[in-house]
Amino acid sequence: MGRPIVAECLDQIFLKARTHTKWQDRPVADDLLRRIIDLTVLGPTSANQSPARFVFVKSPEAKLRLIPLLSEGNRAKTLAAPVCAIIGYDMKFYDHLPRLFPHENAKAWFEGKGASVLETTALRNGTLQGAYFIIAARALGLDTGPMSGFDQAGVDLEFFGGTPVKSNFLCNLGYGDPAALRPRLPRFVFDEISAIV
Amino acid sequence: MGRPIVAECLDQIFLKARTHTKWQDRPVADDLLRRIIDLTVLGPTSANQSPARFVFVKSPEAKLRLIPLLSEGNRAKTLAAPVCAIIGYDMKFYDHLPRLFPHENAKAWFEGKGASVLETTALRNGTLQGAYFIIAARALGLDTGPMSGFDQAGVDLEFFGGTPVKSNFLCNLGYGDPAALRPRLPRFVFDEISAIV
Repeated sequence: MGRPIVAECLDQIFLKARTHTKWQDRPVADDLLRRIIDLTVLGPTSANQSPARFVFVKSPEAKLRLIPLLSEGNRAKTLAAPVCAIIGYDMKFYDHLPRLFPHENAKAWFEGKGASVLETTALRNGTLQGAYFIIAARALGLDTGPMSGFDQAGVDLEFFGGTPVKSNFLCNLGYGDPAALRPRLPRFVFDEISAIV
Repeated sequence: MGRPIVAECLDQIFLKARTHTKWQDRPVADDLLRRIIDLTVLGPTSANQSPARFVFVKSPEAKLRLIPLLSEGNRAKTLAAPVCAIIGYDMKFYDHLPRLFPHENAKAWFEGKGASVLETTALRNGTLQGAYFIIAARALGLDTGPMSGFDQAGVDLEFFGGTPVKSNFLCNLGYGDPAALRPRLPRFVFDEISAIV
């Protein structure tokens, strides 16, 4: 630590990385999906809660179950993407804390708490992991296309039925077509959204 | 894109990066804080909402305002850290969408929506940006110490009073003392939390 990573790496994970909607006809190996998760789980969560859960929708059969649950603008690009990951969070994440955070009784901090506290906690920490997932995929050479527009209750039922997992967002994975990119949308600059006090 | 970043970079942002609680007596320049934000804002959010807001608590005076609002276990490490960032999210993020997402009337998708939809949307996208922030800081050579244990209403009043910004989580920044690290806590493996369908 102590020094920035080399420019090519900063380019790949932030500066030149873009959200893709058009995909090359190039498959994504299952091994690469495993490596994304191996990196993702290392990122920090509060009390090591690690609530995120992942379903990689890759087969034509699974794609057919997912596509009708997407908002119309998300269907064609998801059908064309080699993989669409469903990023969810486990509302009973605390059941695993005796193993994940063994030095304190962290399960007792959450068990029996109201749905709104649990929902906020699982959403916050599951979303941190969702962002680690995006960066990990980019770091491994993939392009990403995260999406919010879908029928959450429908996806929960179809892909997480009978479990305490709720869907959070979706993320297409593959090798994007750079020729299809438009200019990056505007971003805030430091002084608009930040202060040093 | 198409290839993984070099091993040293993967180490720095994921494999060897750790949450720190002990800090070297080495300051963090304001320019480095600016560079973290310049990278953070590039990460994707739904409809480019970009709801995250940042206060870098750096001066002794500002630290004294923050410390009493932290849970007791977070006080000493935050006092010792060169900087503590408050990561918040703007509940009126949609006011900026005509500029950030100019090709559609995205403001109308959110304005007047119920507090729970807005809260979930701002929390989800603000937290994605919070994770980009952690990775950006690591990529620039800093160590991080994210924390959830604090009085959110108190921090909102003290640092975001009179604005629609709510605090999400805190993150100490600096150069950690590697000698103070304990072994990494356990993580899930792929098959426990993931499936390819």
